[in-house]
Amino acid sequence: MEKIRVAIVGYGNIGKYALEAIEASKDMECVGIVRRNGAANKPAELANYAVVKDIKELENVQVAILATPTRSVEEYAKQCLALGINTVDSFDIHTQIVDLRRSLDAVAKANNAVSVISAGWDPGSDSIVRTLMESLAPKGISYTNFGPGRSMGHSVCVRSKAGVKDALSMTIPVGEGIHRRMVYVELEEGADLAEVTAAIKADPYFASDETHVFQVESVDALNDVGHGVNLVRKGVSGATHNQLFEFNMKINNPALTAQVLVNVARASLKQQPGAYTMVEIPVIDMLYGDKEELIRHLV
Amino acid sequence: MEKIRVAIVGYGNIGKYALEAIEASKDMECVGIVRRNGAANKPAELANYAVVKDIKELENVQVAILATPTRSVEEYAKQCLALGINTVDSFDIHTQIVDLRRSLDAVAKANNAVSVISAGWDPGSDSIVRTLMESLAPKGISYTNFGPGRSMGHSVCVRSKAGVKDALSMTIPVGEGIHRRMVYVELEEGADLAEVTAAIKADPYFASDETHVFQVESVDALNDVGHGVNLVRKGVSGATHNQLFEFNMKINNPALTAQVLVNVARASLKQQPGAYTMVEIPVIDMLYGDKEELIRHLV
Repeated sequence: MEKIRVAIVGYGNIGKYALEAIEASKDMECVGIVRRNGAANKPAELANYAVVKDIKELENVQVAILATPTRSVEEYAKQCLALGINTVDSFDIHTQIVDLRRSLDAVAKANNAVSVISAGWDPGSDSIVRTLMESLAPKGISYTNFGPGRSMGHSVCVRSKAGVKDALSMTIPVGEGIHRRMVYVELEEGADLAEVTAAIKADPYFASDETHVFQVESVDALNDVGHGVNLVRKGVSGATHNQLFEFNMKINNPALTAQVLVNVARASLKQQPGAYTMVEIPVIDMLYGDKEELIRHLV
Repeated sequence: MEKIRVAIVGYGNIGKYALEAIEASKDMECVGIVRRNGAANKPAELANYAVVKDIKELENVQVAILATPTRSVEEYAKQCLALGINTVDSFDIHTQIVDLRRSLDAVAKANNAVSVISAGWDPGSDSIVRTLMESLAPKGISYTNFGPGRSMGHSVCVRSKAGVKDALSMTIPVGEGIHRRMVYVELEEGADLAEVTAAIKADPYFASDETHVFQVESVDALNDVGHGVNLVRKGVSGATHNQLFEFNMKINNPALTAQVLVNVARASLKQQPGAYTMVEIPVIDMLYGDKEELIRHLV
């Protein structure tokens, strides 16, 4: 069997888990990892892999998994697409998804390639569930309740405050899409907890949520990549009210994001040229296997 | 706006709810109902609709919603597809879905039409959730727990037993895809509950499940079309174990089935000719509205 030739661009947390997910996929092989430092200080687990500075150094790449920071996605995607390489990413700035899709759609079509964007768990697999629920009860209200789990954006915000050495912001769901923020800070010598707390609570990231700030000895000691979500919708099917839907998960966050990236890498080879969000792709395309066998087993 | 022209074939429980769902959809209109008796004894709520014996009597039908018994689906679908009319159905014999898909795929392609099959909630929307969950944790075990709710197949089975005037079989989930059967029977004069109970428990429909049989004065007095499902998967994303996923719903059964049929009627107009199950269709195609607006709102 010809395996799908995948490259990983970026080798942080998501990149590492993406390699594990590729290794666990019978139909895929990792043809190399693209890192800023190339093969310098190559980690032990990459001994058998090509590690390069530029994706052009790898041969016959079919799909690039962009495991880069969200803000670098567009630039890397355009470079890969221009080479005719499909791209997948987990771009997570909800308000900019439509713009990214337009921008990459043009480049993908011009180069006969496919780009699947915002493919993680939210945006990503949650988006599929939200869309499905909205279709099942077109009138009604949906709530997305995140956590308990770390919010990267909120943690970065707290780290930027004067007197903060390290920080972790936990997102706690309190229902109906409302969240409590539990913030753990390691302070610099001489910093004042009351002042730091006031600065955090005044920031737009936290101003509208119930926020509690705690000083700890070590933020690293609290590190856990578990996360979760609870999606609910109550609505109307046709003229019938009180239709109730709920989706829950408790997951290792980067492991799930990486698995989704690998799934859409596979699916990208089954789409027409262009850029897609996950809700625009048939779910069956994400799986490996004979289509009729999958239908027999899953439908 | 040009509305999607939909016909309903069959006017039982699902057909009635399908009409309500079409009436609630801004982008659709019902161009008529096909019934065996045509306009004879036309129900009051159909006063403003054409009610005919043959779909050929209706003009410019784009999609036919087949709200017929499952065993009649293939025949009606072929008749409609041969006229170039898209069809949607909620064919629910899990073991025959692949065969129906093959059979209708050929006819649909020959007539430049689209057929979406097995589009209800299970098979149907549950199939999308099962497929999504399997993609998120490719190794692992999924369980589909049905109920509490009526099982039509089991109820029909009990009604066929000697001495049974009417019957209702409730499906109660006890976890891990195991179900308890609560059977309510109205007996004919002189029938013996012990004998009826033995006959029910010996039937292959019930033999492997915990089954309780109760005699009641009136089965009709127990009638409730509420149903539910609990889908769970625990599995492995990449190399990371203990990823937990769960989907729950509590719904009016025929109302949800009808809403799904209306959704895939809309989606059918966006697919290439052929036959599809719901897992082969992008979820966004089931919704009415501008694609970018939907992405902005749901992704």
